Amino acid sequence: MQWTKVLGLGLGAAALLGLGIILGHFAIPKKANSPAPQDLDLAILETVMGQLDAHRIRENLRELSREPHLASSPRDEDLVQLLLQRWKDPGSGLDSAEASTYEVLLSFPSQEQPNVVDVVGPTGDIIHSCHRTEENVTGEQGGPDVVQPYAAYAPSGTPQGLLVYANQGAEEDFKELQTQGIKLEGTIALTRYGGVGRGAKAVNAAKHGVAGVLVYTDPADINDGLSSPNETFPNSWYLPPSGVERGSYYEYFGDPLTPYLPAVPSSFRVDLANVSGFPPIPTQPIGFQDARDLLCQVSVSVYNRLELRNSSNVLGIIRGAVEPDRYVLYGNHRDSWVHGAVDPSSGTAVLLELSRVLGTLLKKGTWRPRRSIVFASWGAEEFGLIGSTEFTEEFFNKLQERTVAYINVDISVFANATLRVQGTPPVQSVVFSATKEIRSPGPGDLSIYDNWIRYFNRSSPVYGLVPSLGSLGAGSDYAPFIHFLGISSMDIAYTYDRSKTSARIYPTYHTAFDTFDYMDKFLDPGFSSHQAVARTAGSVILRLSDSFFLPLKVSDYSETLRSFLQAAEQDLGALLEQHSISLGPLVTAVEKFEAEASALGQRISTLQKGSPDPLQVRMLNDQLMLLERTFLNPRAFPEERYYSHVLWAPRTGSVATFPGLSNACSRARDTASGSEAWAEVQRQLSIVVTALEGAAATLRPVADL
Amino acid sequence: MQWTKVLGLGLGAAALLGLGIILGHFAIPKKANSPAPQDLDLAILETVMGQLDAHRIRENLRELSREPHLASSPRDEDLVQLLLQRWKDPGSGLDSAEASTYEVLLSFPSQEQPNVVDVVGPTGDIIHSCHRTEENVTGEQGGPDVVQPYAAYAPSGTPQGLLVYANQGAEEDFKELQTQGIKLEGTIALTRYGGVGRGAKAVNAAKHGVAGVLVYTDPADINDGLSSPNETFPNSWYLPPSGVERGSYYEYFGDPLTPYLPAVPSSFRVDLANVSGFPPIPTQPIGFQDARDLLCQVSVSVYNRLELRNSSNVLGIIRGAVEPDRYVLYGNHRDSWVHGAVDPSSGTAVLLELSRVLGTLLKKGTWRPRRSIVFASWGAEEFGLIGSTEFTEEFFNKLQERTVAYINVDISVFANATLRVQGTPPVQSVVFSATKEIRSPGPGDLSIYDNWIRYFNRSSPVYGLVPSLGSLGAGSDYAPFIHFLGISSMDIAYTYDRSKTSARIYPTYHTAFDTFDYMDKFLDPGFSSHQAVARTAGSVILRLSDSFFLPLKVSDYSETLRSFLQAAEQDLGALLEQHSISLGPLVTAVEKFEAEASALGQRISTLQKGSPDPLQVRMLNDQLMLLERTFLNPRAFPEERYYSHVLWAPRTGSVATFPGLSNACSRARDTASGSEAWAEVQRQLSIVVTALEGAAATLRPVADL
Repeated sequence: MQWTKVLGLGLGAAALLGLGIILGHFAIPKKANSPAPQDLDLAILETVMGQLDAHRIRENLRELSREPHLASSPRDEDLVQLLLQRWKDPGSGLDSAEASTYEVLLSFPSQEQPNVVDVVGPTGDIIHSCHRTEENVTGEQGGPDVVQPYAAYAPSGTPQGLLVYANQGAEEDFKELQTQGIKLEGTIALTRYGGVGRGAKAVNAAKHGVAGVLVYTDPADINDGLSSPNETFPNSWYLPPSGVERGSYYEYFGDPLTPYLPAVPSSFRVDLANVSGFPPIPTQPIGFQDARDLLCQVSVSVYNRLELRNSSNVLGIIRGAVEPDRYVLYGNHRDSWVHGAVDPSSGTAVLLELSRVLGTLLKKGTWRPRRSIVFASWGAEEFGLIGSTEFTEEFFNKLQERTVAYINVDISVFANATLRVQGTPPVQSVVFSATKEIRSPGPGDLSIYDNWIRYFNRSSPVYGLVPSLGSLGAGSDYAPFIHFLGISSMDIAYTYDRSKTSARIYPTYHTAFDTFDYMDKFLDPGFSSHQAVARTAGSVILRLSDSFFLPLKVSDYSETLRSFLQAAEQDLGALLEQHSISLGPLVTAVEKFEAEASALGQRISTLQKGSPDPLQVRMLNDQLMLLERTFLNPRAFPEERYYSHVLWAPRTGSVATFPGLSNACSRARDTASGSEAWAEVQRQLSIVVTALEGAAATLRPVADL
Repeated sequence: MQWTKVLGLGLGAAALLGLGIILGHFAIPKKANSPAPQDLDLAILETVMGQLDAHRIRENLRELSREPHLASSPRDEDLVQLLLQRWKDPGSGLDSAEASTYEVLLSFPSQEQPNVVDVVGPTGDIIHSCHRTEENVTGEQGGPDVVQPYAAYAPSGTPQGLLVYANQGAEEDFKELQTQGIKLEGTIALTRYGGVGRGAKAVNAAKHGVAGVLVYTDPADINDGLSSPNETFPNSWYLPPSGVERGSYYEYFGDPLTPYLPAVPSSFRVDLANVSGFPPIPTQPIGFQDARDLLCQVSVSVYNRLELRNSSNVLGIIRGAVEPDRYVLYGNHRDSWVHGAVDPSSGTAVLLELSRVLGTLLKKGTWRPRRSIVFASWGAEEFGLIGSTEFTEEFFNKLQERTVAYINVDISVFANATLRVQGTPPVQSVVFSATKEIRSPGPGDLSIYDNWIRYFNRSSPVYGLVPSLGSLGAGSDYAPFIHFLGISSMDIAYTYDRSKTSARIYPTYHTAFDTFDYMDKFLDPGFSSHQAVARTAGSVILRLSDSFFLPLKVSDYSETLRSFLQAAEQDLGALLEQHSISLGPLVTAVEKFEAEASALGQRISTLQKGSPDPLQVRMLNDQLMLLERTFLNPRAFPEERYYSHVLWAPRTGSVATFPGLSNACSRARDTASGSEAWAEVQRQLSIVVTALEGAAATLRPVADL
């Protein structure tokens, strides 16, 4: 039976008969607390897919984005209560839910003394003042809770100097200016968003003596070139001229005062003077309207303040019936810069609908998953993934030992063209299985999978043409799970047709124009893309929590390793050979991994044909679950806070291979053989080889040491 | 049924009827490959205890110690073959066995140019030359394979200078000399073994400008004051005047060139110039005969050479019937400095007897354990735990995920008075259970437990008077398992009556007098103490591998934590308060641990009364097995290579509390509040609190996040 067809039917029924009847239609009555089935129950999956309701998601979003809910604000705390109320609901709640609070260092503009950007004439007279707020175009940009646009964690200060346009504020941009003989000392650098991280612009600028940094959003990057008020929101999805992207300018993630420790009141806090990762000079974001008007001397007055604030995570749990010590984690952050309808409430609206549907089945006694499902609403993500990072610091070992996978749905809908998934290779197969069975929104009768492959695809040596998954950076709360704990992770969203827009991200990102109406009118009218994301995430969660054998295909890592190896051979082989460094051990290690992963897959296939006992399956599942952990080495990149994954740590080198190797080669390229830089290349190569050999060893039959 | 009685009977039978009959007497025939029983089979345990044969252990030791077998020597390789042959024997071998070889950096004296210590008169004439070899008193000290006494890893060099007696070569010893106005620059320091580590003597000396170090064994420390040839070996167990203790003077452990990487040929090797941890100045050990004669100017000529050598571990495996992915690891090193009858062959002799008895049951099809048992013979331990460390580096994740416990039996018999066990708290209960059921060697009808409690005991708040376990330092191959991987570990031996000798260690330790006859005549005539250790280790291994519920009592950690907390409160409380540091969070964390550990124990007791399903038990066992891992924090002590266990890392501070806290307080004591040293105290306190909170979290019911 094809999911697409079943769902087509289900949706028709929904339109005609309403939700109550659908519940009756899909639910398969079972006695309360009945033992979980041995394997994924397709009837339950069908029920869940049918009950995920676009209208309810829309209502969730309306409520979530009704008011600005900056991290730790009263409205953010109200939403904590909303989540608790939903997750404790007698009819559709979870087994348990609680909020846990951390005391973290956030940064805010001063209310008394707003940040100011002025153009100053030769005699000190103010020629032009930049807007301090965005234009109140829908009545939602003017309230007292709309935080002034600012660069979180930028230091206070009132520098004044000549304006220099520094493109994206990358290191090469400042070098180029120097080459052109432009004096940077004491200037104000005007940079545009994109290219490098927010904080990096100030770090790079300060190295050249720049006194202050402005960051604006260029219409070419975000609005497909359009910039006039009648072409922008509320008349289109494009950013109005007054729109300013807020954001955290902190270089790392987690609470800045408690690296590697949970930000509970008793934890040691680094002295403020010793905190690293803040922008070194005053920095302020502005809109393109103001950017266009800037001339001459510019004076930037930044009055940001650091504050210790309480920020909560909310956790809701469905207890596993058979393996309660195996956790399928599904989360999103709750805090926004302003109303945050797109970022992050579109994700939370989906989260709430999914927890309602599963909670209802649970409360009726229809279903209980084999493994535990944990719903998480993270706090203070916008300031640097703080809530999720503190959570991983507090429960490091427990989460590392027991978590099957982490699923992140932050912005669930950027646009309604196609699914987009970022994740590590083992999650590819479960996402494919899920999306092949769900109807894509929009015209036609395609599955989400078939629609997806039209937008993002690659030619796999194993499978032929398949949708391509992106790799996980550090753009949302999955970062601590994959980089710090080594848990297989994914991020799911609906997104753009890139032939229709070149916007760097949806135009009102981190501005006061990111509101319910913006989503409702321009991004996902009808909320069918939200529903598609809810169904995709729901199916993935059910498959991960209910399948007897974990649907994590570890052999899909072989393609990644092989491509990293090929890049190393092609683009670094000659260079390494010149320095007497052999890739032979890496070749052997990759081959060993491929062979062991493939053999494990065959053992599982064979077992699946018989009736394996639960302990046998548990042992195999542990091999699958823990494979990702074997790629962690907390001593591999001591200078990169939290990053321990030897395959997905940040890569700055140009060659698309193992990041440690790529980066070390890039640094060593112009130095002599025998230098410390080449020793570091060899060390990084050994770290990768040891990790791959160790990974292969964990895939072997468990009694072969 | 009491073990003591059964064994009395069994031993009588053995004496009368010989081994074949005993096998028939004890063995309970079962069909081959019969499924493992649900729980520990007491009949099998009885069989194993009865079959462990003192005579066979003695013959093992004779063969193992027949020739010197310095790490990587031809005889060491012969022993690799001996182990493989035994473990592949069709009648008494294991499921599989293989040797794995590492290429490691060892240090040897030059054969062409022996190390020399001369007393030189004012005009340069040689007044006295120290012995270059030990006296050939039994015909075993004279062979070509007896390595010249030397300080492994001491650099070459030929310093000459005035002799200064520097006691044990501790930092305070050199300071005392300075206070007395004695010029140390350019001198040769004569130090005696003990007090501080071998390498530390040279490190401390070099700081004061000393040019060379001699280290001798003082009869007061090792021979209960006796020193004349007719009072020493071969006439007693005491060290002859010419005896010289060899040893590694390397500060860390593992192969010096490949920290954190396995020493396989492809691994990156640190440039020799960048290796840290070697003694900084030429150093040479001498006997007390020579030490007594030293006067005036002394010239020390050290010609040690570093060599890359192949060194093998041998691994033998008994595959678990039900949970083959759970490993009970039992190991000892194989290499010795000379014949090494005591160190380490007495342990290997026991290991071989235990593997023979278990292998025989296996090959007959009588028994197969629930979990896997891994026997390990480590290489190059004497140079710094190299074989075991490289093994943990190579299989870090796999071992960490799957190892139930590590049991080390290095020197199995120091003397025949009493059992001595070092270990982490969770292993206490299984050792107690085992030793209560085994008859103690020697007169009387005491159990090993009842004999043990007479020599080492403490008053436990929970149990009253019990034998006391020592804590694990880094004296043998358990070190990487407990400190680097966080695996519950223990070290088992028979040892001295401290009322009869004050010897620092058995007198011929690391000398050419540590021979079979030495053991056979003076330490354990009749080998009954060897048999007692074999039975203790055997019973512990069977209990760990066959018990349905793992016999690791995690609540026994509560006593340790409580005592660490009390020491902190009593001895540091006032000081911490002066610096506004509260122990409140630590109190809370310890209380939480106690409550959770106790509740977990009760849940297990309740389950044990019913008939829990294997998956339920597996989940609880995972909590027990993985508790020790929760105390690891690889970022806690970045300057202490490998040490990551926040409870058992080296403690240099005087207060017997959490080592990070104790050490940081000791360093901060004389500095002002607000200094970096006090920030480090707070950081260390937070690290402990976070670890304890995290540990308690893993003990909670698994569905409560």
